[in-house]
Amino acid sequence: MFSTEKLQKQILFLKEIDDLKQIFRQTVLTKDQRQENDAEHSWHLAMVVIVLSEYSNLQSFDILKTVKMALIHDLVEIDAGDTFCYDTHDRTIKTEREREAAHRIFGLLPKEQAKEFIDLWEEFEEMNTSEACFAASVDRLQPLLLNFYSEGYAWRKHGVKKSQVIERNHHIAEGSSELWRFAEALIDESVKRGYLLDG
Amino acid sequence: MFSTEKLQKQILFLKEIDDLKQIFRQTVLTKDQRQENDAEHSWHLAMVVIVLSEYSNLQSFDILKTVKMALIHDLVEIDAGDTFCYDTHDRTIKTEREREAAHRIFGLLPKEQAKEFIDLWEEFEEMNTSEACFAASVDRLQPLLLNFYSEGYAWRKHGVKKSQVIERNHHIAEGSSELWRFAEALIDESVKRGYLLDG
Repeated sequence: MFSTEKLQKQILFLKEIDDLKQIFRQTVLTKDQRQENDAEHSWHLAMVVIVLSEYSNLQSFDILKTVKMALIHDLVEIDAGDTFCYDTHDRTIKTEREREAAHRIFGLLPKEQAKEFIDLWEEFEEMNTSEACFAASVDRLQPLLLNFYSEGYAWRKHGVKKSQVIERNHHIAEGSSELWRFAEALIDESVKRGYLLDG
Repeated sequence: MFSTEKLQKQILFLKEIDDLKQIFRQTVLTKDQRQENDAEHSWHLAMVVIVLSEYSNLQSFDILKTVKMALIHDLVEIDAGDTFCYDTHDRTIKTEREREAAHRIFGLLPKEQAKEFIDLWEEFEEMNTSEACFAASVDRLQPLLLNFYSEGYAWRKHGVKKSQVIERNHHIAEGSSELWRFAEALIDESVKRGYLLDG
């Protein structure tokens, strides 16, 4: 069925990543409070990157590279699962599990593409470039938006406090000062409306 | 909460498009045969564009633009709904409904971004550029892959025939001769395995 081994590898990778649609997160959709999955989140994140790229602290950044990061950053969760961001228990072993997953999943691709995707994923994790910083910022902003517009559904369910949300999300400022100012206002408004515990 | 009217428009657009996750398609996921939704499909499509871009008939094409098309091409279905591709009944009024939806949904954005997205969506629909041709090709290839790897679930459910699949999908060749050769082999293999009716 496959004309080349290269195409076979690419198609089998594209089949494998279908499973990202099965990894459910703690955040819920704004309309019916159904849990969001990682494929939907990754799509939404890529849209946030495209729509809000003008707010990056560093203007000279590569949008395509940042969009790619948004699209692939959670693929490791096909093997490693989703870790709730306010759950500190699992986070120590998370990194190692995710690195193994990156090598297995991206390793399905032809060698050069596998390397490109592993490098992109590691760059995202290390947050040392303007692209990785901005991608990480919007990766925090997107769940804030869903939490706010679902009236704090996941926050209320887990009894999350304002200080935890600030601790978790203040890195938004590294990618975008403007978006962090907005996020702070949104957090304050969430407390005011009873979506989020004060303190 | 919003520092500028521009940011408010962008955030409200990003909130609105959360509803793409509620629009379910006829194709099903390979693992549990749950129907795929448009956000998942758009994410998967963007990944197909990135992984298979080397097979475009025209090499000099803009990958970012093609990825953007993949990400936004189905947003109109938030208002207009999904039309099953082998259902000819609804297709005549589909175009007008979708054009209205494009203007309402993209019109939530600041003027310049609204224009960029409406233009991109129209370019995708008209299929006159190399980016639109390739995006349209993979938009047909991705459901073929899901149909094949779900053992023809949606084809069998609707009693779809090989000739219909070829009629619907031969446009893949306009974006990529190589991917159309692969699709033909996949269609033949589907008939052989009983996923798809011959004739």
